[in-house]
Amino acid sequence: MSRKQFRDLADPETARETIASLDLAPEPTEVPLREARGRVLASRIDAELDVPGFDRASVDGYAVRAADTFGADEADPAELELAGAVHAGVEPSVEVAIGECVEVSTGAVVPPGADAVVMVERTDEDAGVVSVRTALAPGDGVMFAGADVAAGERALGPGTVLTPREIGLLSALGVDSVPVRGQPTVGIISTGDELVRPGGDLDSSAGEIYDVNSYTIATAVEAAGGEARLYPHAGDDYEAMESVLREAADDCDLVLSSGSTSASAVDVIYRVIEDTGELLLHGVAVKPGKPMLVGRIADSAYIGLPGYPVSALTIFRTFVAPAVREAAGLPEPETATVSGEMAVRERYSEGRQRYMPAGLVADGDGTTLVYPVDKGSGATTSLVEADGVVSVPPDVEYLDAGERVTVHLFSPDVRPPALFGAGEDDPALSRLLDRVDRPRHLGVGSRQGRRRLRDGVTDIAVVTGDADIDGAVTLGGWRRQWGLVVPAGNPDDVSDLSDLVDRELRFVNRTTDSGLRGTLETALESLAADRDRDVAGLFSDIDGFGLAVRAHESPARKVRSGDADAGLGLRATAEKLGLGFVPCGTEQVQVLADASRTGKDGVEAFRQALDDLPAVAGSLPGYDS
Amino acid sequence: MSRKQFRDLADPETARETIASLDLAPEPTEVPLREARGRVLASRIDAELDVPGFDRASVDGYAVRAADTFGADEADPAELELAGAVHAGVEPSVEVAIGECVEVSTGAVVPPGADAVVMVERTDEDAGVVSVRTALAPGDGVMFAGADVAAGERALGPGTVLTPREIGLLSALGVDSVPVRGQPTVGIISTGDELVRPGGDLDSSAGEIYDVNSYTIATAVEAAGGEARLYPHAGDDYEAMESVLREAADDCDLVLSSGSTSASAVDVIYRVIEDTGELLLHGVAVKPGKPMLVGRIADSAYIGLPGYPVSALTIFRTFVAPAVREAAGLPEPETATVSGEMAVRERYSEGRQRYMPAGLVADGDGTTLVYPVDKGSGATTSLVEADGVVSVPPDVEYLDAGERVTVHLFSPDVRPPALFGAGEDDPALSRLLDRVDRPRHLGVGSRQGRRRLRDGVTDIAVVTGDADIDGAVTLGGWRRQWGLVVPAGNPDDVSDLSDLVDRELRFVNRTTDSGLRGTLETALESLAADRDRDVAGLFSDIDGFGLAVRAHESPARKVRSGDADAGLGLRATAEKLGLGFVPCGTEQVQVLADASRTGKDGVEAFRQALDDLPAVAGSLPGYDS
Repeated sequence: MSRKQFRDLADPETARETIASLDLAPEPTEVPLREARGRVLASRIDAELDVPGFDRASVDGYAVRAADTFGADEADPAELELAGAVHAGVEPSVEVAIGECVEVSTGAVVPPGADAVVMVERTDEDAGVVSVRTALAPGDGVMFAGADVAAGERALGPGTVLTPREIGLLSALGVDSVPVRGQPTVGIISTGDELVRPGGDLDSSAGEIYDVNSYTIATAVEAAGGEARLYPHAGDDYEAMESVLREAADDCDLVLSSGSTSASAVDVIYRVIEDTGELLLHGVAVKPGKPMLVGRIADSAYIGLPGYPVSALTIFRTFVAPAVREAAGLPEPETATVSGEMAVRERYSEGRQRYMPAGLVADGDGTTLVYPVDKGSGATTSLVEADGVVSVPPDVEYLDAGERVTVHLFSPDVRPPALFGAGEDDPALSRLLDRVDRPRHLGVGSRQGRRRLRDGVTDIAVVTGDADIDGAVTLGGWRRQWGLVVPAGNPDDVSDLSDLVDRELRFVNRTTDSGLRGTLETALESLAADRDRDVAGLFSDIDGFGLAVRAHESPARKVRSGDADAGLGLRATAEKLGLGFVPCGTEQVQVLADASRTGKDGVEAFRQALDDLPAVAGSLPGYDS
Repeated sequence: MSRKQFRDLADPETARETIASLDLAPEPTEVPLREARGRVLASRIDAELDVPGFDRASVDGYAVRAADTFGADEADPAELELAGAVHAGVEPSVEVAIGECVEVSTGAVVPPGADAVVMVERTDEDAGVVSVRTALAPGDGVMFAGADVAAGERALGPGTVLTPREIGLLSALGVDSVPVRGQPTVGIISTGDELVRPGGDLDSSAGEIYDVNSYTIATAVEAAGGEARLYPHAGDDYEAMESVLREAADDCDLVLSSGSTSASAVDVIYRVIEDTGELLLHGVAVKPGKPMLVGRIADSAYIGLPGYPVSALTIFRTFVAPAVREAAGLPEPETATVSGEMAVRERYSEGRQRYMPAGLVADGDGTTLVYPVDKGSGATTSLVEADGVVSVPPDVEYLDAGERVTVHLFSPDVRPPALFGAGEDDPALSRLLDRVDRPRHLGVGSRQGRRRLRDGVTDIAVVTGDADIDGAVTLGGWRRQWGLVVPAGNPDDVSDLSDLVDRELRFVNRTTDSGLRGTLETALESLAADRDRDVAGLFSDIDGFGLAVRAHESPARKVRSGDADAGLGLRATAEKLGLGFVPCGTEQVQVLADASRTGKDGVEAFRQALDDLPAVAGSLPGYDS
């Protein structure tokens, strides 16, 4: 077999059909009824017995011959001789002769001779004689054998998903083991020398990263009704990888690989496919996800997923999950979609079908706004910052702000966040957000926080410095002590900002988006004025002034790891990490809210948390509300 | 403590509040990430490391100093000396000096000195010199350390439900074990001497029935996020039951009992509650479900469910499941509701809040019709014949046909059956229905089948005899051979219907709703005419002519069990059960469809199955399409 050439990318429909042509369905199996929740019946179940299996008293009372009560009423009760009693779970030892009755409890076998049961409330008993104050028809108060289900009746059909209700009916039939569709076994192989399983030791200096796809895809396989098997992490070594691929193909209905995009890894996969199977499709015209492979390895189906987590999960959800559900016999879930208005304009230029991860937010009127979540396919945070996907056809060049789009939610129970904010990243804020159900906050710094609030995307902005935004109101805020984070015990004896300028200290700054960066620059401007110097010159005297990191703990962590002598940070961070701290001042953090959204439950919950700030942030050093 | 008296039934809101006041929430626990799907975070997770942990090449190409490429373009490329290579997963052993570049693959550590990566497509390499045909800015082609997630950032908040997306983010953070809300442990005790676990031997003559509630409620507990524990079936014996209740209360956050309504069983429960806890509520003004108990046994919450399966599951779903979800930290699912028109008029008179099980069916225009499913609380088939519940307030006396009602679906993915039929119960029909996705058929006999089709409730009716219904068309049909089912080998040498009249044979008939009963009566009328006799006299000469059973196999099964010498039935049934058969004729079964619904997918699928009848029913003896 010569290697196939796939010069053109397949369109999404062809990819779907190619995957549908793979046979993933395992043999049916048998499971105990107790463990059958969510499983799918493989074949019809007919009743093998009558339910109930006997003529059953459906009230507490007396079993009678209905004919003996004809004409009876309150004024003229029928008088019957009490011949005995039958309780639930006991075989009757008496018969009901003409003129007699037998006491029965609900669920008891109606004794021979009787054809009705009168409820105790319509009777009186005195010295072995029961007065029946109503006339009965045959069958009154009795559930006849087979009246609920009769032996031979069709009870449940093939393809039925077993919920508590079906399990109830099967229990009634005495079935304790049911024939169900097998769950397709899906082998998952992450490739790439740089991957380490979560929990393992990571050597970042060697470029190692944690393996995101294995657990993510395994969990998604299980959510789609498959059984996931993780194979030992395969590096790019030919022999090891080939052996893992062959082992997985032997064991599984479907093998999924993801991870390495290195030429050598792809080459191994091609060769194993060539040796044992067939390559059906290589590359699909979608974004993200272009480098998808579909084929067969030995007797197993094979799909190669892209390496980036967002791409891998998008391709899995769009193309693979439907095939897994089909193989498991599960119906496609009701597709949950939400219609909303684009919050911002978004451009496209690839000429490929695009699956745009999108977040949702409700504005003050309850209108759903949709914003793109695009941090590059390499970002794992996109996984949780999106609520669903907007399908953008290849010929669409842009989506305009205000344009109506349909979002396919990741699951029907996805709801927009109750509170959506952006801005500073702050330890007190982290605790405040714990008080709100379903908050979403993007720690993008004050500048970006202000921009998103102005654009009408977010509900709140958490900022330092300029808090004067049209249409925004202040919900509250706090002061935080900032300064230089230094190694524990302050070994360099740093005493203030001038040491950064005057001494050979390796410094780590924050990015210009961060509020703290602005506060630092303001302080340095004042130092420059004191020294009658140009502030830019002062900046350039600081070794590492341009070495700017994004998040509030990052500079302190560089100090802790010995990569810097001083970092811009908060007292709270220094104390949390067991480092020294040189105070430089306090700065005000303010929470601004879009005035039209202060009525949202999440905004109100956050405002209440702010009122309770001393309790929430009280133990944080350097904080003052 | 004296026994509390609860003379008045609690209203539903009080019941809900009383249950909400019980504390079911277990301690948080820690689970491996791999098994965390669907669990709920107990506390916030902040990032403990940067993702990526190093400055990472995001394209295949060359790491450069951006300043070296300033001004470069296609016409005037920058020429850089190739100083080495760095691959993913390897620590760089080279630096990038001014005028140099280093080959890097996607995911590799950007080597010291470099601040950008140019993609290979914008370069040419020749003899150790790389021409860069574009200008780069610092950061191009690089994902900086912490750009995705920075150490110290808030990653996920408490209360987050873990889906594949959150598991992806946690994988990226290297977390392999997560603090999650505990799943409340719910002990389930079914009481009643007559109950047998599914799979056990049933003695119907002693009034034994299979225990429906244990597995049903256990499955429903699991669906609500709890962990179900089944306790050995407790009879009504005081000591045994007390010991099981105390054991369950010791082990579990909540104990549920259901089953026996016998006074003695309730008495035991009262006494254990009195000895160890508190009775908070007894009886609630709802139907079904009045006899609900709420209280505490020792340190555990206790709820007594009604015994009938439909009542038990309704009360569980309405009152208990929300408390289990709350304890597990799970959000209430989006309530799936459907609005539809009542297909028939339904009366109420109890003056209690009613939870009416309801089925759905789409009419020819796609309008959703709602019909009550009420076969008495003792019927387990109601469990699967309903799609949801209509809440009917206590003061509503009736719902009129055509009145708009809201149905709360059992789950959001419930859909109306694709085909809804009623009428004959037949082995060929059972197989035909297997060819249709989501069919629902009620084996209520020809007469009831005709009535429901005329009422506009069902899509099809499966009938013998009169097939002339206004607005109905015939989809197809088949002939089936009927006669007398007798013991194997026909020991009584029965030869035709006249033996029933002339000899002492114990006969079992079908109910008058069944088509076969009509066919038998027609045959006997003709026999009566031959003999010049009154047909009623002929009927009364047959021993058991009035002993009528509902389903098509039921008479044959009475013959097999020795309770009868001959039963009305089909050749197919006789052969299936290994019995003898005395043919009496063939009868036509016809499938009638509501003419306005022939366009429904399910009706069309059934029509196609009918076209394929020889293949579907071919192996059934006595059938002829």
